[in-house]
Amino acid sequence: MSAHPRLSLNQATIKHAPLDEALRLTSAGGCTSIGLWREPVAVVGLDEAARRLADSELRVSSLCRAGFFTFPEGAERRAALDDNRRAIEETATLAGAGAPGSAAVLVLVAGGIPAGSTDLAGARERVADALAELAPHAASAGVTLAIEPLHPMYASDRAVVSTLKQALDLAEPFDPAAVGVVVDTFHVWWDPEAFAQIARAGASGRIASYQVCDWQTPLPADVLLARHQPGDGVIDFAAFTRAVEAAGYAGDIEVEIFNAAIWDAPWPEVVASTARAFDAAVAPHLAAAATA
Amino acid sequence: MSAHPRLSLNQATIKHAPLDEALRLTSAGGCTSIGLWREPVAVVGLDEAARRLADSELRVSSLCRAGFFTFPEGAERRAALDDNRRAIEETATLAGAGAPGSAAVLVLVAGGIPAGSTDLAGARERVADALAELAPHAASAGVTLAIEPLHPMYASDRAVVSTLKQALDLAEPFDPAAVGVVVDTFHVWWDPEAFAQIARAGASGRIASYQVCDWQTPLPADVLLARHQPGDGVIDFAAFTRAVEAAGYAGDIEVEIFNAAIWDAPWPEVVASTARAFDAAVAPHLAAAATA
Repeated sequence: MSAHPRLSLNQATIKHAPLDEALRLTSAGGCTSIGLWREPVAVVGLDEAARRLADSELRVSSLCRAGFFTFPEGAERRAALDDNRRAIEETATLAGAGAPGSAAVLVLVAGGIPAGSTDLAGARERVADALAELAPHAASAGVTLAIEPLHPMYASDRAVVSTLKQALDLAEPFDPAAVGVVVDTFHVWWDPEAFAQIARAGASGRIASYQVCDWQTPLPADVLLARHQPGDGVIDFAAFTRAVEAAGYAGDIEVEIFNAAIWDAPWPEVVASTARAFDAAVAPHLAAAATA
Repeated sequence: MSAHPRLSLNQATIKHAPLDEALRLTSAGGCTSIGLWREPVAVVGLDEAARRLADSELRVSSLCRAGFFTFPEGAERRAALDDNRRAIEETATLAGAGAPGSAAVLVLVAGGIPAGSTDLAGARERVADALAELAPHAASAGVTLAIEPLHPMYASDRAVVSTLKQALDLAEPFDPAAVGVVVDTFHVWWDPEAFAQIARAGASGRIASYQVCDWQTPLPADVLLARHQPGDGVIDFAAFTRAVEAAGYAGDIEVEIFNAAIWDAPWPEVVASTARAFDAAVAPHLAAAATA
């Protein structure tokens, strides 16, 4: 089996596979990079996970995820920030254990509006405050915090950061090595400003991760599971991929899909179909498509 | 029964009521204004609908809806533009029949990406082209075309116009009397640029309609039916209402709710609960809250 050298399989695409299986399947499918999640890492423990990642000889392209820091000051907020500090350490450890070219990138999902509140602006301010608290830790650990703007349909319950412009505005006070952004096609494809903001992100060196998956309607009953393989929906992957390339991003490209049918399919088939979808929809638009 | 003098009941909130019933229930509920839909008007015929509206002594605050002009050039596009011209005439007729203070405002929903296409940018260009074709008709009929940005979760299948900024950019080439925008809290509440764009819309005299309803999660299985009474969700109606007031909008304010449970409730109860929700969530933030 082979796969494009810049394809990274985000572990969430085969969500129910334990870490060992995910590493083995990713390699067996010809991928050379994986995007890890904290929960399956925690199941075996960080040190053991790092050893297994090293044994796999895969690169790690990101760790998902921390964030969720929209709580007002108090015990919940302190617990969330402590958890983010732990996630920074985990990211550094895993990136150190991954093959050369691994990225010490921690994906941040901001969190929603606290229950019972209508203060979206306040929740957004607390994201900025949390970044200010965490950025020095990230910098000293050599980790990039990657703010992921999520589709506005998640703004109330999952992420009050809804656009690339907003994510870049939040990142601006910090060194790009410490705070960048995720460009995930599923979340930003609809945005009339998306291409201008991708260019802006490139100019400031802030694209920490590029994730690809597709949008289709009708949406499923659980809108969290609305993602599809690149090419199966309405997103123009040629335009996005060229824009991200032109912005100077040269790292691994993750396919991250939350989809009940894909989660229920046999894992090797999912890895193979992900590699095929990437080859068809994304790879032709990469400058180095023919290498490796 | 009484209701705030600026409350307009959008007919979709009691979707299954025929026109006669909708007019009667709106008046009986103490409302002095109604937002009409073309389908129930068509059931009785335009001229008869205009007579009944005149008899009701209600104002009309808008007509929903035209638009859906993202088809490439061809028969479908021509049919859509013809339909928009008819809708402009209908709007003028109904506004002429409504009580003084009626608004000749036609709500435009842009339409989605044509089936099988990934050309979002092209679909958006065709919206601009359609406006250029329709604006002179609107101007000569004394009708304002009101571009409604829809929530980005509808961008693929319903409206490629997703933000107020985009709607205002589309409106900019035209006289504000001919082309304006709708500010619907449900669609724009999440947008970090919303308040800046409301101010911009006010400065250019382009707020043609202000519609209020609330956002709640989890979303229902059919995301078209995700709307709630003002105050039942996460939207800050104080902030939005003050912003729209400060932008100079002094017209009727529609409550437009698509919600299966509300559609199934007895119509008089829905009208009464709409008036109460408006009084609690919106009216206190209107400068003229105490009048009438």
